[in-house]
Amino acid sequence: MPAFSTIATDPRSRARAGLLETAHGAVRTPAFVPLASTASVRGLLPEQVAALGYEIVLGNTFHLFLRPGGELIERLGGLHRFMGWERAIVTDSGGFQVFSMGHGTVADEIKGRRGGGREGAILAIEEQGVRFRSYIDGGERFISPEISMAVQRQLGSDVVLAFDECTPFNVERDYTARSTERTHRWLERCLDWRAQHPDGSLFFGIVQGGVYRDLRTESVEAVLAAGCDGVAIGGSLGREKAQMHEVVDWCATELERRAPQRPRHLLGIGEIDDLIRGVELGIDSFDCAMPTRLARHGVALVPDPAARWRLALDRPAWRERAEPLVAGCPCPACAGGLSRAYLHYLASGGELTAAHLLTLHNLTFVAAVMRELREAIVAGRLAQAATRLRAGGTPAYELR
Amino acid sequence: MPAFSTIATDPRSRARAGLLETAHGAVRTPAFVPLASTASVRGLLPEQVAALGYEIVLGNTFHLFLRPGGELIERLGGLHRFMGWERAIVTDSGGFQVFSMGHGTVADEIKGRRGGGREGAILAIEEQGVRFRSYIDGGERFISPEISMAVQRQLGSDVVLAFDECTPFNVERDYTARSTERTHRWLERCLDWRAQHPDGSLFFGIVQGGVYRDLRTESVEAVLAAGCDGVAIGGSLGREKAQMHEVVDWCATELERRAPQRPRHLLGIGEIDDLIRGVELGIDSFDCAMPTRLARHGVALVPDPAARWRLALDRPAWRERAEPLVAGCPCPACAGGLSRAYLHYLASGGELTAAHLLTLHNLTFVAAVMRELREAIVAGRLAQAATRLRAGGTPAYELR
Repeated sequence: MPAFSTIATDPRSRARAGLLETAHGAVRTPAFVPLASTASVRGLLPEQVAALGYEIVLGNTFHLFLRPGGELIERLGGLHRFMGWERAIVTDSGGFQVFSMGHGTVADEIKGRRGGGREGAILAIEEQGVRFRSYIDGGERFISPEISMAVQRQLGSDVVLAFDECTPFNVERDYTARSTERTHRWLERCLDWRAQHPDGSLFFGIVQGGVYRDLRTESVEAVLAAGCDGVAIGGSLGREKAQMHEVVDWCATELERRAPQRPRHLLGIGEIDDLIRGVELGIDSFDCAMPTRLARHGVALVPDPAARWRLALDRPAWRERAEPLVAGCPCPACAGGLSRAYLHYLASGGELTAAHLLTLHNLTFVAAVMRELREAIVAGRLAQAATRLRAGGTPAYELR
Repeated sequence: MPAFSTIATDPRSRARAGLLETAHGAVRTPAFVPLASTASVRGLLPEQVAALGYEIVLGNTFHLFLRPGGELIERLGGLHRFMGWERAIVTDSGGFQVFSMGHGTVADEIKGRRGGGREGAILAIEEQGVRFRSYIDGGERFISPEISMAVQRQLGSDVVLAFDECTPFNVERDYTARSTERTHRWLERCLDWRAQHPDGSLFFGIVQGGVYRDLRTESVEAVLAAGCDGVAIGGSLGREKAQMHEVVDWCATELERRAPQRPRHLLGIGEIDDLIRGVELGIDSFDCAMPTRLARHGVALVPDPAARWRLALDRPAWRERAEPLVAGCPCPACAGGLSRAYLHYLASGGELTAAHLLTLHNLTFVAAVMRELREAIVAGRLAQAATRLRAGGTPAYELR
């Protein structure tokens, strides 16, 4: 039985509503996947994440490999049990994070996040794998496709990602081509390891190829030929949104043509307009630090496309404002009648409560956007929903 | 109708179970009052605090006076509305915090907290009030009994505390005597202001007098003669626990003899053994930063008197331990099956989720201790409950 089934398709785009079946329950798609990189959605209880409607979170192999280690988590019953999360978990392979250390600020630029590279450093990228310095203790460590697979197995991941090299956008075509070929060889090694250690998890290959269309097409072919349960789109997606959307379009076009039944994940992308566009392009799931990281920095998501859906609460403009962040939003801040003035006060003071309230608010916002898009696909009115949301419409919180 | 009524008394101590009626509901006593100094119990949602069974929290006049200011909170509907808390609020008067800045580390020593004095400083203590430098912006500010009353009115406090001078323990008798007399003059000014601005709030005078029995007795007399709804015991309570318990005993003995119907609050004290002893001595309510502050520093409360009921999760000893913090504890960490190993991992990494889980755990623990003590008083078996808890018994979570 295939893991992914399509429930409805949009007649005017590649968008589709589906269901991804995992060992820890089904995930309705299109879905946003909150980050639980270090074994928790930062600041939240597992029950809060579930109550927001999320059916899957993303754990990070790189961080968990370094601390506390896959062996310990396995001995304690796996990542689900370790962090008290009973629903599905997808695990990043560690490729993005380990290469972020080497590619440094360029990788930060791509996805607006720091990876794990604050203190660490790549020592050598070899065919066998990557030697690097741990950002935890400065010790030398090694990661390879086999190690990534073994750690993801120890974690008990429901959706395992291939170990890849993530190239930044400013790398030359020649390097990108050679790196992508190595990523494909590493994909084969991941699959070999999994063939020797079968379990019930799903496996997603990762399409690389930078901003080069032919390389992206070749990468799609290679990933599909290898026989993965699903496909993730990774690596550099370009310097600007337009280029990123184009690269995603290339990949999704090929995927739709060659293997429409395989689920498609877009790695590290989650701005509101990118989610809407990604759904139209045929992406089934997204992960991104954005909603939760912004919350920790005092930024709320609001239906304001001119401000990239962001409202920075430390701005003095909010000091005396009695209105909630978003009228009608069911999060504890908005439904609890808390004012922008209060959130300004908490956020300006660096209060923990600000991070908590804003994380809930932002994940409520993203969940509502994704739900509205999904239900619009089912109802055959995606174009209207997308237009409405792009114009700054408040997501229809009352759905479902 | 008096605000406080006694439900049951312990025949072998001064302990009593009571009910304090406020404009925002009744508070069952003996009660622990979590700190919401800066308009939130740090990291928690109001609904979480209420779900733990707390019926009152403590807001801080000093901090809220400096930022965002009483006027703004009043304009936004008062502190209850500002922070989304529908139950009772007691407000510290600002006396402790402003004098902490002057008395510096000595005041820290008394209560193990920093007050607001990191960057601020007292400029002058005068009969009229105190001039000081704000720790927020370095600007010169002034606070007096009248200003403290006005700000507490703006906040909409249910239980207003008198503006007092809080003397540290190493101050000489002569200074303590003069300071205590000034505190009594300031008490009269607080009451004058309140007489001119009547409302439905309760007012607690503060007993000072340092570690000098006669000064404490005089202070009790002065506070009772002034006609307060309740009495708080403040200031230096001595260098060690034994002396602190003795000072509290002096005060409570006088209060029991002269005005048994008045509720008695013990300021800034909340270690588990102090709560048990305080209840026996006849204290009706306690506030303390301890349970919530410890949580933010990775320390859990556990039934282990030899370790002062503390378990430091960053210790390597917990790295691989599968057991919960406290078996039978209904908090999300323990009832959710989260291991000490997981909490060690989160706390060592400085993760927000550690602060959240441990704050809930610690407040669950303290709530259970207080509930067990209260129900034991009602059932006429306080001595057994106190003995059991002092010996490291797990609080009876299932009560009520």
